[in-house]
This record gives sequence, C-alpha cells and structure tokens, in this order.
Amino acid sequence: MALLDRIDDVNRRLPHRRYYRLYANHQAIGWLDTQLLDELDSALFTITTQKQRVDIRFAPAQRQVFESRIEQFFRRYFAKHQLTGWRDEHYAVATGFGQNTLFLLERAALSFLGIRGYGVHINGYVEGKDGIAMWIGKRALNKPTFPGKLDQIAAGGLPYNLSLRENLIKECHEEASIPRQLAEKAQAVSAISYYYDLPIGIRPDVIFNYDLRLPADFIPQVNDDEVDSFHLYPMDELLAMVANTQAFKFNSAVVIIDFAIRHGLITPEHPDYLALQAGMHQQW
Amino acid sequence: MALLDRIDDVNRRLPHRRYYRLYANHQAIGWLDTQLLDELDSALFTITTQKQRVDIRFAPAQRQVFESRIEQFFRRYFAKHQLTGWRDEHYAVATGFGQNTLFLLERAALSFLGIRGYGVHINGYVEGKDGIAMWIGKRALNKPTFPGKLDQIAAGGLPYNLSLRENLIKECHEEASIPRQLAEKAQAVSAISYYYDLPIGIRPDVIFNYDLRLPADFIPQVNDDEVDSFHLYPMDELLAMVANTQAFKFNSAVVIIDFAIRHGLITPEHPDYLALQAGMHQQW
Repeated sequence: MALLDRIDDVNRRLPHRRYYRLYANHQAIGWLDTQLLDELDSALFTITTQKQRVDIRFAPAQRQVFESRIEQFFRRYFAKHQLTGWRDEHYAVATGFGQNTLFLLERAALSFLGIRGYGVHINGYVEGKDGIAMWIGKRALNKPTFPGKLDQIAAGGLPYNLSLRENLIKECHEEASIPRQLAEKAQAVSAISYYYDLPIGIRPDVIFNYDLRLPADFIPQVNDDEVDSFHLYPMDELLAMVANTQAFKFNSAVVIIDFAIRHGLITPEHPDYLALQAGMHQQW
Repeated sequence: MALLDRIDDVNRRLPHRRYYRLYANHQAIGWLDTQLLDELDSALFTITTQKQRVDIRFAPAQRQVFESRIEQFFRRYFAKHQLTGWRDEHYAVATGFGQNTLFLLERAALSFLGIRGYGVHINGYVEGKDGIAMWIGKRALNKPTFPGKLDQIAAGGLPYNLSLRENLIKECHEEASIPRQLAEKAQAVSAISYYYDLPIGIRPDVIFNYDLRLPADFIPQVNDDEVDSFHLYPMDELLAMVANTQAFKFNSAVVIIDFAIRHGLITPEHPDYLALQAGMHQQW
C-alpha cells in the first residue's frame, strides 16, 4: 500500500468500459459510455457520431424541448433498468465551472453522460508546537454513500444556484457546527481533478479545497445525521492511515495528500511526489 | 493577456516538431526529435523504432562503452552543426527523480533527447497586516539565459550529486546572501511539471517549489554576478505583471501562479483556476 494507491483509487477506470467524448452543440460537456450510446441513438434529439466523439445537437430556441426529451429518456432508462436514486433536482450543464448553462439535467443522470460535478472539502486543522493535527469526521453508518468512511471536517457536492463559499459555510454549519464567522476564515488553496468510474458511468469530478485553521480549543459538534463523530488526528498518523488503509472516502484521501504536500509534510524526497501531483490534476 | 498565457508559454510545443518517446533498455527516459533520429541511426549503439517510440539498447556491462559512444556522437553533432554550450559536466539519466542512474550524459545533450531536468525555486515572501509581498530578483543583464527577466529570490538547476536541500541553501547564499540558518526554514510546498520546446529539443522539466517566509526587516543582497537587483512587490502588483507582461522568466511566472493559488490569492472564482493547475502538473 502506498499514497499513490489513493491516486489510483480516485482515477479508477474500469477496464471493460469505453467512452466517447460528448459534445452539446460543439461544446465538450462529458464522456459517454459506448453502451449507453446504443440506447440514446433511438431518442428524439439529434446525435452525430464520428472519431470517437458524440455530438448532441439542438437549436437554442428548442432548449426546453431538448431538456424535456432528455429527461424523458432518462426516466424511461431508469425504469427499464430498475435504477434508483432519481433526485428530482436539476443540474446546470456547462463546459466548465462558472461557464454559461447549456441545459438543465436531472442530477441523477450526470454520471451516465460523464458530466463534471463539483464539490467543496474543508481541511479543519490545528497548528501547535507539536505540528499540525486535523479534525476528521467519520461518516454516519446509515449514510447511503460511503458509510463509516473517514472524511474532512466538512464537505459536500455543490448544489445548483449556490456559490462555493455559500456552500462551504452551509456545510461547515450542517456537518460540524462551525459558526459562520469562523467558517468565513477558510482559504481557497487548490482544486483536485480526477476520473472515477462507477458502474453507471464516469465521474470526471473536481473538488475545491479550503484550509481552515481552527483555534486549539475549538471542538466540532455533530449537527445532523450525516456524521457519526469527529476525531483530532496528528498528521503523521493520518498520512499512515491514508497510505496503508482505505479508511477514507476515496476522494477525501486525496484531499489529505494535497494538504500534506502544500504543508511540507510530503516532500520531493518521496518517490511518488510528482506522480501524486500529476494524478490529482487530470486535464479535463 | 491572462495568467493562462503563462501556462501556455511554459508548455510551448513548436508545431512543426515531432517527438518519439525515447527508451533506454525498455525504460522511458525522454522524447526524441524525429529529425535527430535520422542522424542517431548511424551511430554505434543499437536503436529499434516502432510505434513512435525509440529504444536505445546496451548491455549493462557495456554501459561505459555506451556512454563513451553517445558522448562521441554528441561531440560530432555539436561540431557538425557548430553548436556552442558544451558543459563538460555529466548528468545522471534516470526514469524519474531519485531513481537509479541508467547512464551518464553530457549536460548540454539533455534537450536533444528530451530528458527531464530538475530545478529548485524559492519564494521569499513577507507577510504583514497588508497581506503578502514577495522579494523578486532581476536577472543580470549579461546572463546568457533570460537576461533582465524577473525571477524568484533564488533558483537554480539541480547539479549532479547535490540534494535538493543542499542546492536550495547554496542558491539562497549565492544569489541573495540568505544565511544558511534562514534558508533552512524553507518549506517544500509543490512541484510544477511542463514541456518547453527549444529549437534543439524539448525540455520536460520539473521545478520543486519552496516557500520561505522572511522576517520583515530582512533585505536580500546581490552576492554574485547572476542577479542585477532585488525588489519587494505586493502580490497584487506581481500578479498583474505575470498576467499582462512577459517580464518574468517563463517558468518563474508559473511558480508565482502556483504560490498565489496555494495562498488563496487566485481563487476558484477565477475562470482558469482548473486549467492553470492542470497545465502546471503535466503527466510525465
């Protein structure tokens, strides 16, 4: 086991899967499983396929018609394959973070089209004479995703119509009872980008990382049913756990590695120093 | 002009150039210009070419013979093309930083074979009530490479048989008169990787970045003929200069961008936040 295994975990690509680059009106928006393509072809919107790329086309004036058709397609697809997890929540598909919305899509359909999702993770740490220690949350055991896995003090996917900073303050409050005034001190420090294969499709996701230095006497409190408990770990203990176990949620482990590199706790003398950094900054 | 232009500068690939991946005894070591390949073919060591890769082969017991032959080849090549810059200095070619030496090569030949070079750059900064300011060196006007360009407080290529930290302390002393005791406080924080095309070949280089927080009353002093002068810039002024001018040495500009991201001075709201990071962490 090694730190680089955590980078491999997050860039997992299932060997039997093949993807085409997906475009909407000539703008790259995702990655499409070739198997799904066979079913999509029979849908009502226009698709052209060439050179391992798939172009979805619709006239801008017909955007609402297109949105309705693709939603109907996925409703049928979910029913046919008895899939659960429909969210009844719209996601704004764009070519990049902060770019104009091309169309709205049911959030549960994101992975099927390999559309990039965004999240924020907050490193809540304490720095003292003995070095750095970090507050780590253990995810609730009844959480549908990654129950019992270790995670940052607060983290969450970015909802539609919420800024990164608003989401950060919301998650800090909801997950760890961090007051707004303290959460506002969180500093943007980096982003990590990866390709994570799920049975239903690929997630070319991005996590925006924030460092939040906490007072020595601050103790995070569980506030909702998302978190089981919090524990303060010295960084060396945390890094050994990241390297040698899969106790962490797959992407939260990489957030720890990024933190350790930026704070000089993993140095260029580490044999995988460059591979770790290249692996957490995948080109879109 | 934009910050992303500086990433493009550093990943410059000349459009008319073509490269084959270069292997030595089945281990990837560089990138070979296809034009140079025609001349190499007539040399004495064994080369096989397939699938746009070139394999140089020599028996481990014949390493010294191989080293002598490739040195002779490049001596003839330099003479034939009237090239200057022969260093009479050996570089240890390996598959990665800190890996075993495969063979020794004259340093001036590195670019011809697209072999990765390494350097250290030190961000010497001051943090006060008004934010962060950074000490910037102006390269001497008679320096053969990038005269008059702006640069970190200290920086330098990594010589054979010197550790990163020894090199850092040496450069801090030689370029900015930073005493050893202060230089030792420098903290490893990241590395940037890029592909820079030169007329003679590609440089897939790596810079190891260090942050050195300096006391407010410390003033760097020119110590040798490498540096013209030092100036302390507020970060906003520095970032405007990086975005809008080519005043900085091409790779030193990217070190500034990396620093600004890690210190929350370029945030996820910047439209190129992800592209900047992906572009400075190119896969080897």
